[in-house]
Amino acid sequence: MRAVYYHGSKTLVAGEAASVPPGPGEVRIRVAYAGICGTDLHIYHGHMDARVTTPHIMGHEMSGVIEDVGAEVNGLQPGDRVTVMPLHPCGDCPACRAGYGHICHRLKFLGIETPGAYQTLWTVPAFAVLPIPESLSLELAALLEPLAVACHDVRIGAVQKGELAVVIGGGPIGALIAFAARENGARVLVSEINPYRLALLGRLGFETVDPSREDVAARVNALTGGAGADVVFEVTSSAAGAELMTKLPRTRGRIVVVGIFSKPPAVDLHRFFFRELQLFGARVYEREDFVRAIGLATSGRLPLASLITDILPLERLADGFKKMESGGDAMKILLRCAE
Amino acid sequence: MRAVYYHGSKTLVAGEAASVPPGPGEVRIRVAYAGICGTDLHIYHGHMDARVTTPHIMGHEMSGVIEDVGAEVNGLQPGDRVTVMPLHPCGDCPACRAGYGHICHRLKFLGIETPGAYQTLWTVPAFAVLPIPESLSLELAALLEPLAVACHDVRIGAVQKGELAVVIGGGPIGALIAFAARENGARVLVSEINPYRLALLGRLGFETVDPSREDVAARVNALTGGAGADVVFEVTSSAAGAELMTKLPRTRGRIVVVGIFSKPPAVDLHRFFFRELQLFGARVYEREDFVRAIGLATSGRLPLASLITDILPLERLADGFKKMESGGDAMKILLRCAE
Repeated sequence: MRAVYYHGSKTLVAGEAASVPPGPGEVRIRVAYAGICGTDLHIYHGHMDARVTTPHIMGHEMSGVIEDVGAEVNGLQPGDRVTVMPLHPCGDCPACRAGYGHICHRLKFLGIETPGAYQTLWTVPAFAVLPIPESLSLELAALLEPLAVACHDVRIGAVQKGELAVVIGGGPIGALIAFAARENGARVLVSEINPYRLALLGRLGFETVDPSREDVAARVNALTGGAGADVVFEVTSSAAGAELMTKLPRTRGRIVVVGIFSKPPAVDLHRFFFRELQLFGARVYEREDFVRAIGLATSGRLPLASLITDILPLERLADGFKKMESGGDAMKILLRCAE
Repeated sequence: MRAVYYHGSKTLVAGEAASVPPGPGEVRIRVAYAGICGTDLHIYHGHMDARVTTPHIMGHEMSGVIEDVGAEVNGLQPGDRVTVMPLHPCGDCPACRAGYGHICHRLKFLGIETPGAYQTLWTVPAFAVLPIPESLSLELAALLEPLAVACHDVRIGAVQKGELAVVIGGGPIGALIAFAARENGARVLVSEINPYRLALLGRLGFETVDPSREDVAARVNALTGGAGADVVFEVTSSAAGAELMTKLPRTRGRIVVVGIFSKPPAVDLHRFFFRELQLFGARVYEREDFVRAIGLATSGRLPLASLITDILPLERLADGFKKMESGGDAMKILLRCAE
């Protein structure tokens, strides 16, 4: 089989690899498609070397077909079409004991702390494997993991029918949040500066605003009679996003922090006092979010295919990263892993 | 009658004043006691000159007895012992229409945008007047307004029985939050650097920690088996408080921002993501918080008297401010307004 190995900052090597036979409680999956996530780009840039052991196989967004199963695996069998919820909680820390395994204090993330999906055959714990319906294509199923992120964010944000949701940052996660918020019945405005993404989101029926050309708060106030947005999603991890997010919500409005900030930005806490704003951190997903994502993707109501801008052979992972770095006309890039 | 007028930064003039007869829908109160709030100190320092019209009479924490009532006032009469909920919402902005009059977009705060309680006779709208029970002393009733703030904060923080609540900042509001959180059945730890306040809070049965001498997060982790606090109240409006507040909560723990930050501090949004923290802004109070405060104060269960460190004649307001500025052994300072 084939794999792509990360050897250190911006160094990738594609080649033959030995497959790992599934041990007890494990499942080996023939990976069909694997998506490239911003986190993978961070690893590629060397920013997460403290968490990965080189040579490292990245990748945690995927779809595939079970090749074989180890001992003590029930309910899964070769030929099953599946995706993976790539979380391995410890089961024993205060977060796990409180029922929040997805934010386990010692969480192992498959594809970061363990080998990932950028290979032909991926061996994972059976508890992480979720079957997918026959009617869902393997291409679209590779988007289930980021869609589960979006479903989690929208659930944490408690988006209701008739509300105005503003998404700051219209990349893949922002777009999927827009999809999921619209499914909840919200009106959605996406703030984004990339012209390609603005045009795509506009074609998909979303209201958009370019914060480099227009006052987003003025736009939101105009849309709401001066009241403000019901819920705001910050998906840029930027100082500008952290500044904008507090200007938009109504009294008692909600902000969901989705972006992963590498350093603490200035946040207008006076605005939290003044309008009694609420802020919710959101991290990955819980099982119910993955179930929701599978249901939504299978419904056919989401324009998921429009987000897939490139499908590259596994060996061209580096080209995928280059395209993401370019900031041009990319949304979600998939790798075709098993030929 | 007598009043103390603010004429500009650090300039107070005490003297005879003309009382305002109550118009339709108004009530004139003989002010018994009026507390000095940190907001009054801000006005005194000239930091709120954009909101006050000089000469200005400050004061919004008070107790008193109705002197006379204007036309169209029902249910209130001369001789009634009362306090004032000093909010005048517009009734027509998006916040008011959503039922959040206390965070009205055009809120007038009695004693800031209008004349306040630092006078013998105070004329206010009847809707702002709340009767108090005969068994509650007028001294303690002057603490109802800050106690209502604390009740609001604790309600916004949804403090539950058996939880660990950490209060960052043990001044009058922080102490009252500690009282109200303990009434809800929480274990309370107060972080404070002032030795007088630390000693007082310790005598009142609260656990305390001095962040200049001890690692507060380590203390909280030791108390909770590494889990973290259920709820944290930030009452210092300081960069240090904004930094500390994100280090303490458990996964999905709550932070209530009580302090009024004059500039946006750095906030560790990564921690919000990592532990799925929640942050709630809290501003003043709603009527139910005042009702709760009156009930708690009347119950006799709260050691309110221990917070009153000085009772000065109205004319000595400047001495009260000086004592607050000294950072020494002051908690709540009251003015005796009607001799």
